[in-house]
Amino acid sequence: MKAFQDFYPEHFAHCYGCGALNAHGYHIKTYWDGEESVTHFTPESFHTAIPGIVYGGLLASLVDCHSTGSASAAKYREEGRDMGSLPHCRFVTGSIEVTFLKPTPLGPELEIRGRVQEIHARKVVIASTVVAHGEVPARGLVVAVQLPPDVGA
Amino acid sequence: MKAFQDFYPEHFAHCYGCGALNAHGYHIKTYWDGEESVTHFTPESFHTAIPGIVYGGLLASLVDCHSTGSASAAKYREEGRDMGSLPHCRFVTGSIEVTFLKPTPLGPELEIRGRVQEIHARKVVIASTVVAHGEVPARGLVVAVQLPPDVGA
Repeated sequence: MKAFQDFYPEHFAHCYGCGALNAHGYHIKTYWDGEESVTHFTPESFHTAIPGIVYGGLLASLVDCHSTGSASAAKYREEGRDMGSLPHCRFVTGSIEVTFLKPTPLGPELEIRGRVQEIHARKVVIASTVVAHGEVPARGLVVAVQLPPDVGA
Repeated sequence: MKAFQDFYPEHFAHCYGCGALNAHGYHIKTYWDGEESVTHFTPESFHTAIPGIVYGGLLASLVDCHSTGSASAAKYREEGRDMGSLPHCRFVTGSIEVTFLKPTPLGPELEIRGRVQEIHARKVVIASTVVAHGEVPARGLVVAVQLPPDVGA
């Protein structure tokens, strides 16, 4: 099954967070799971804040690309179009908030689950939870802004 | 001149964003510039969102460690103590917001400038601007939470 990010055109596939063509990046991949979008990611041992705890900047990165991908998929779905069909439907981050409720343990695979909170003409709001060991150590809220279809065309 | 982060005890020096002991990390370093705190950082070529633009997750990481470092320095200063003096004064991120006002060009050195917006018993709020080529493409707001002095002691 292709991830949302696998449908990005080449110009948008260089992102450090989710670009398939970025050799140094995280290669974040997001999928539908019913009405929610889901990303799985296992941090490296060096993605640490204090020892044993995941670095918050990494969590912000995961929430970021998870949310812009979810926004793209949500917009395609709302328009009744197949992902990747033209014109491209690509979002960037207008704003991101991450709230850290408790330390996120470093080691287990993390799950980011997103819900479409609002969908407007050119903006989509994605609310996410970070799940680790069945608990929610962090929450995210992203306002994703749709790029004009001719950007990178 | 030692950066704020150079005063962190060893247990807190492993952070991917600002830990001197993290071989893979960004080694973010923050200093006073009068009443403001300042961090300089030049992204790598692969820290890209779309080509030519800095990855937002990296900007969130810079704002994050810049702000927790600034919170520590502000608290020491408020208490009239030298940085690094005991008990340690170390902050983690309670929440972070980053607003992207325009694309941040990839290439030039970035400057993050912070102001202490609020200082409470155990929380410090740091408001930051990201400066690139004299413009402000992004703003950050971090609520930093002070760790109990016995954490990592």
